[in-house]
Amino acid sequence: MIKIAVLGCGTVGGGVCQLLIQNAHDIAKRTDKCIEIKKVLERNPQRAYDLGLKEDQVCSSLDDILNDDEIKIVVELMGGIDFAYECIMKAIDAGKNIVTANKDLISVKGEEIFALAKEKNVDVCYEASVGGAIPIIGAMQNILCANTFTDIVGILNGTTNYILSKMYEKGWSYSKALQEATDLGYAEADPSSDVEGTDAARKISILGSIAFNSRCTLSDVYCEGITRIEERDIVLAKKLGYTIKLLAVAKERNNKILLFVRPAFVPLAHPLASVNDVFNAAFIKCDAADEIMLYGRGAGSMPTASSVIGDVMTICQNIANGTTGKLGLECYKVKEISPVTDLRSSFCLRLRVADQPNVLAGVASVLGKKDVSIESIIQSPVKNSGTASLTIITHPASEQDLQTAIEELKACEYVKKANIYMCLDMETM
Amino acid sequence: MIKIAVLGCGTVGGGVCQLLIQNAHDIAKRTDKCIEIKKVLERNPQRAYDLGLKEDQVCSSLDDILNDDEIKIVVELMGGIDFAYECIMKAIDAGKNIVTANKDLISVKGEEIFALAKEKNVDVCYEASVGGAIPIIGAMQNILCANTFTDIVGILNGTTNYILSKMYEKGWSYSKALQEATDLGYAEADPSSDVEGTDAARKISILGSIAFNSRCTLSDVYCEGITRIEERDIVLAKKLGYTIKLLAVAKERNNKILLFVRPAFVPLAHPLASVNDVFNAAFIKCDAADEIMLYGRGAGSMPTASSVIGDVMTICQNIANGTTGKLGLECYKVKEISPVTDLRSSFCLRLRVADQPNVLAGVASVLGKKDVSIESIIQSPVKNSGTASLTIITHPASEQDLQTAIEELKACEYVKKANIYMCLDMETM
Repeated sequence: MIKIAVLGCGTVGGGVCQLLIQNAHDIAKRTDKCIEIKKVLERNPQRAYDLGLKEDQVCSSLDDILNDDEIKIVVELMGGIDFAYECIMKAIDAGKNIVTANKDLISVKGEEIFALAKEKNVDVCYEASVGGAIPIIGAMQNILCANTFTDIVGILNGTTNYILSKMYEKGWSYSKALQEATDLGYAEADPSSDVEGTDAARKISILGSIAFNSRCTLSDVYCEGITRIEERDIVLAKKLGYTIKLLAVAKERNNKILLFVRPAFVPLAHPLASVNDVFNAAFIKCDAADEIMLYGRGAGSMPTASSVIGDVMTICQNIANGTTGKLGLECYKVKEISPVTDLRSSFCLRLRVADQPNVLAGVASVLGKKDVSIESIIQSPVKNSGTASLTIITHPASEQDLQTAIEELKACEYVKKANIYMCLDMETM
Repeated sequence: MIKIAVLGCGTVGGGVCQLLIQNAHDIAKRTDKCIEIKKVLERNPQRAYDLGLKEDQVCSSLDDILNDDEIKIVVELMGGIDFAYECIMKAIDAGKNIVTANKDLISVKGEEIFALAKEKNVDVCYEASVGGAIPIIGAMQNILCANTFTDIVGILNGTTNYILSKMYEKGWSYSKALQEATDLGYAEADPSSDVEGTDAARKISILGSIAFNSRCTLSDVYCEGITRIEERDIVLAKKLGYTIKLLAVAKERNNKILLFVRPAFVPLAHPLASVNDVFNAAFIKCDAADEIMLYGRGAGSMPTASSVIGDVMTICQNIANGTTGKLGLECYKVKEISPVTDLRSSFCLRLRVADQPNVLAGVASVLGKKDVSIESIIQSPVKNSGTASLTIITHPASEQDLQTAIEELKACEYVKKANIYMCLDMETM
């Protein structure tokens, strides 16, 4: 029998309780142990009772858990940073192993947590912190561990992927899609951490740390959300054979790490283009396995519980074997973070220009001087405006060079407006 | 330092040697050990020398490996059944841990191998035996281990997926696509085990054993290949919004297991539809994680080596921890195998019928009596033949009922020909 404590009885806590009951027989068979929730820490006891927990299982003080030597694993499902951090550090200090789904915490305080865990010889597992049910972290840390990773391209936020999918499939506006996501419970009352990309940025910083063995944190990630995307952007992407996805990317080139979250054009033939609605995926490039994509539900009660209980079962085996203290996220290298303008990619450049002769030649010449080579151009007059819209897909180019070219273009009197989307490149990724 | 032996210096053996050198530093860091190939068993020493191995590393007798106490892990990469089985059983008996990429062997002789390994307290790892580089087996056995699995739907053979992708994308005939696959080295001189579905059947029997904890072997799998697929089948699928894939399926319903390999219509919106060329994928349904898809390269030197070395690294840690003997494939349940006609699915039924009044009503009536409900019908006359083709997509129905209905239809004088394709159902899978 392994006894665990659960901090927080919200949505995921409910899934954890249900899954432990539902699959009790097989879980016991696979781990050689029954897993029992001895205590839950929850301010509102009714929530715990609603999950079928008894009065003596519910406590309101962390000390009741810390001082209980029978409890070997503490499962943190409260979210947030400060109090969760305090609880986890105290629990590790008391010799408890930790399972957490808390991406905010791992992204921001990972270094301190993993260091203390190593010192105290306990495991810290966090599979559920990125991609919900999707076996991303375990796959990278174990099954694919013979590889050198070069690129992780993720769709790591279900809310924004739902919004973008509906804008694409149904032609909805951003605000209608957001409203629908809110009504369905996918978006929170304050959706800013989703739609501004922060949630995805936290997750990609965790995957970057794993992939490159060098600590990446939220502040290392360049972050752009989906709030500026208009219906006509989606229409254009569709016309050109792309869809728009909020990509969370971690790349290593020349020992430097590039981390960003930004909306991007994804070619319809790319496996990530078929990741729709609230589903998440991580597309991984590495030297031996080459291309791997892992796809599934990135959130939700039972999917998150799947990863949480998976972690609990792993720790159970380590406890039985006397081998705890090896699972965590050790970063044994220190690599520089590149500015996002170091990115080399294809881009979709959109210009509003005066509808007059020689403009195209002028634009092409400015781009050419900066080594930005053009794959295709579509020019179309904008009715009754005396202007035309120019859509240019570039070959892979340095974003720095492209940005310099855009500054130069903006200074030309015939250029009225300019903006870019990154295009995911089928050849390089 | 962990010393290993490799049996067979073919394509994958070359990848293993290269990967151990290429990522030596990180492999040592992650396992706390250097991994060294002490011996390779290879009849043609030149193949070993070509991989950079020295004379004293090459042996032609298995005994040189069995009697070497420094060798802790034997990596079997020869393929085939009889000699590989003999080598593996002897190696286990001599206390060596095993890594193998041999699906034929695991599918047919798994029970004996895992039983002896348990007795001898050694690990047997076989991640590379299904889906090459794709982290399927480890994900199901570890990260997703809190789940009850209900369905595995795989595209598990790269050669046939390449052929079907090219028939779909380029309109090639089966024989042209097969020729191209042979020219590119994807298909072997005798492609029968690929195109007849046996290779995929072996792999799905392994995944079925893992998913349902009950031993499934090759002989449990109903198997139909891709040789009967014609260009007009592909054209029809495209017209109806499907692609055709060779699906390897393992399902559990009511404690019974259904295993089959057959070509099927896959809706274009399903994630499996975008798995093209030589790529493989496993689409997994389970109770907590819900839907998971794992995608990547199913074969090739380096991708297979990725999984092989991943397994070697796992065993290295178990040796260091003194915890070998727990990795294998224990099947602690015995479940019945259902006949394939127990399948419930949507189907595409194609009939060639006499072009005369009331035929449609007659067909609908025969289907209706067998509880086969119709989703859509397309009827088109076949020029100058006095016949028409009827294409019917059914709602989910019992294959048994549908087959009985087809027998009845074939007895009608107005029905000239009838055949069916299974349709992957977006709602149930």
